[in-house]
Amino acid sequence: MEIEKDNELMEKIVSLAKRRGFVFQGSEIYGGLAGTWDYGPLGAELSHNIKDLWWDFFVRKHEENYGLASSVLMPEPVWEASGHLEGFADPMVECEKCKRRFRADHLEEVTEDSSKCPECGGAFGEEKAFSQLFPVEMGSVEGSKVNAYLRGEIAQGMFVNFKNVLDTMRPKLPFGIAQIGKAFRNEIAPREFLFRVREFDLMEFEYFTREEEWEEHFEKWRKEMWEWIDLVGITRDSTHELEVSEKDRAHYSKRTIDFEFDYPFGRKELYGLAYRTDHDLKKHMEHSKVDLRYTDDEGERFIPHVIEPSFGLGRTVLAVLVSAYREDEIGGEKRVYLAFKPSVAPIKAAVFPLMKNKPELQTKAREVYKDLKKAIPQIMFDDNGNVGKRYRRQDEIGTPFCITIDFDTLEDDTVTVRNRDTAEQERIQISELEPYIKEQIETKK
Amino acid sequence: MEIEKDNELMEKIVSLAKRRGFVFQGSEIYGGLAGTWDYGPLGAELSHNIKDLWWDFFVRKHEENYGLASSVLMPEPVWEASGHLEGFADPMVECEKCKRRFRADHLEEVTEDSSKCPECGGAFGEEKAFSQLFPVEMGSVEGSKVNAYLRGEIAQGMFVNFKNVLDTMRPKLPFGIAQIGKAFRNEIAPREFLFRVREFDLMEFEYFTREEEWEEHFEKWRKEMWEWIDLVGITRDSTHELEVSEKDRAHYSKRTIDFEFDYPFGRKELYGLAYRTDHDLKKHMEHSKVDLRYTDDEGERFIPHVIEPSFGLGRTVLAVLVSAYREDEIGGEKRVYLAFKPSVAPIKAAVFPLMKNKPELQTKAREVYKDLKKAIPQIMFDDNGNVGKRYRRQDEIGTPFCITIDFDTLEDDTVTVRNRDTAEQERIQISELEPYIKEQIETKK
Repeated sequence: MEIEKDNELMEKIVSLAKRRGFVFQGSEIYGGLAGTWDYGPLGAELSHNIKDLWWDFFVRKHEENYGLASSVLMPEPVWEASGHLEGFADPMVECEKCKRRFRADHLEEVTEDSSKCPECGGAFGEEKAFSQLFPVEMGSVEGSKVNAYLRGEIAQGMFVNFKNVLDTMRPKLPFGIAQIGKAFRNEIAPREFLFRVREFDLMEFEYFTREEEWEEHFEKWRKEMWEWIDLVGITRDSTHELEVSEKDRAHYSKRTIDFEFDYPFGRKELYGLAYRTDHDLKKHMEHSKVDLRYTDDEGERFIPHVIEPSFGLGRTVLAVLVSAYREDEIGGEKRVYLAFKPSVAPIKAAVFPLMKNKPELQTKAREVYKDLKKAIPQIMFDDNGNVGKRYRRQDEIGTPFCITIDFDTLEDDTVTVRNRDTAEQERIQISELEPYIKEQIETKK
Repeated sequence: MEIEKDNELMEKIVSLAKRRGFVFQGSEIYGGLAGTWDYGPLGAELSHNIKDLWWDFFVRKHEENYGLASSVLMPEPVWEASGHLEGFADPMVECEKCKRRFRADHLEEVTEDSSKCPECGGAFGEEKAFSQLFPVEMGSVEGSKVNAYLRGEIAQGMFVNFKNVLDTMRPKLPFGIAQIGKAFRNEIAPREFLFRVREFDLMEFEYFTREEEWEEHFEKWRKEMWEWIDLVGITRDSTHELEVSEKDRAHYSKRTIDFEFDYPFGRKELYGLAYRTDHDLKKHMEHSKVDLRYTDDEGERFIPHVIEPSFGLGRTVLAVLVSAYREDEIGGEKRVYLAFKPSVAPIKAAVFPLMKNKPELQTKAREVYKDLKKAIPQIMFDDNGNVGKRYRRQDEIGTPFCITIDFDTLEDDTVTVRNRDTAEQERIQISELEPYIKEQIETKK
């Protein structure tokens, strides 16, 4: 299904993300490095929260899932075995006039006349395969050329360490190996903000199972992926399963589901769930000559099959931003707010003195702020401008609660807690603040 | 001071790290990629805990410190401005016979006769400068060659985003910009386990201050670095400040302290604290032509000066392992244990049924395990072998508490909690387990 593009919404989100310190263009003061994005103070906290939530949900809470943090640099034989050296390429055409390169399969999306260069109108040369792997020359021996690559996906780290995990943890099937980490792809044409980039974080696990149980586990993780979508605050109604057809699947995969999201620029991939059979371990066993079979309690030796749920961090951040973006009116004034789940919000609460220039309010507000920050570190203090303006500023960065210290506070130790989504205020004892906010962070999970 | 090398201790630690799933050689089944290490399940949790602790201690708890997560790929002009293109090189000699390369300044450490190749006895050619930066060819325009590098340090990400942070967060001096992330260096001769590697995580912040206040803040962070050393569980007595002399400092630094640690292979750098003056921002302002000055409340515009506390994650893991490694005797039997702080221990507690083949013990133990895991996810279940063996296994991976469910538990809902360090046991109500362990995690911080 084609959904309508909403360029205006996209521009608003990119602009807010930049203006409020979520996402900056990489190396911006030098004109920017295409396909790289830097998370600013709020984006760093947002993505930190998302990674922690994911690790907790998919790894620590599942006793059969094991964590890993493998290297970005991996030698050529790994990529030969995985098939990336040969197959990890995009179809590319080059303009014969200006020498710019384009994804042959994306030309329709960037130009109306896909036979001419959209930049200079020049003619294209023949279509070629353009490798997405970044080669890196290491080597402490002269003459040894390219011998490693930046990993183009993190999954190979799990396969290459499969035997290490077997030997050290002695897990029973089914079990998973999970990691969060950087991957790099030499995209011909990075675009659509955090969507198609050259450097990105993946959150992924390989779930090893007996062949005859793959469908059961595929179903199980499909359901948990939907739970995750709710948990992190991605709009369920904007997310759709796409059963990937045989011709579009990797040749070794017997079933793949793409989770697509309605981004403002169209419905495109968010997450993936793939049944990869025993392809990867088999290939690594052939190439490395190391026995990667699993031995069960009856002494049977076999190569387990694999289910792979895969999540891009940048795409998650983008989908969370799009899902959270709201415009409404309060007291006749337009406002913009990000309706983040409290668990992912970069700032959980902001503490204000009602007025900046009243020392007794300042002192009390600083006291409340400091106490709260000890228990919930993602807390901010703000005394700039009037309270209405501070509310707007916090709304725009998705802070669920604003706590105002006023003259009544000095009498009765109560404060006003204002709710971001409803703009309603309630009066709460200072001693109740910590449990109140903690409960919201937990229950809104 | 020269300390005595303890190769045996080092071998024990490397072997334990490998055997119990802390650290594996990168791409090991393909013979290993020199200078890369993969964290296994326990190492991933250990390093995850250390990073979280660091982020909490140095970033979230300090309201004037802002987080960042900038890209690994940065374009050539960044490295030109920073001086890395020209100066980030090691002195290298190459054997004329076998073509192997060595650090000219480390030859004494690897061979007795530093005029001959320690591998083949061949003669060395002339000393050359060998760049530590890994070039990466990006580019969607044909003919555009090397245009980016894998960052050799993460600090440049903070400097390049200095203006973005100023514009979006409007911080007052002094303030910091912090990040945790990967850096890459083309080491000629990676060695000493996690100490000298080609790919590693750094935890670092740049603290911006007025020139006249640099000494005060240098002192402040020096003290907090010592607090961190205690917090993470690095032996204070094995850690030493080295005042780096002018000739050994970077030319722009007016003061640098190395925190050195007594590793089993000698006293070497653990952390660094450097006063970098206004050198970096000045250089980036010159090269990017972007105004990087700060404007104070009086309207004065100037380039702030910088204090940089810098922490390597791998070196921290190594120092924590060395600090935690213990051998003693219990009941006439030798045991090895890792005396991790509960806050950094990869597993906080292990839950056992006293016997494996008693269904009522199993059921109860699973129940206790599941409840506890909801509140404290880093919990393990173990029913393999006798309880004594399970204690030893948990000791070796540094689990602070072992909880045994026995027949009395079925009667009175109490369990045995055994302390890793003292091997003493106490009887605790099941309902008290969660607060008991949480308190230990907190107070032993």
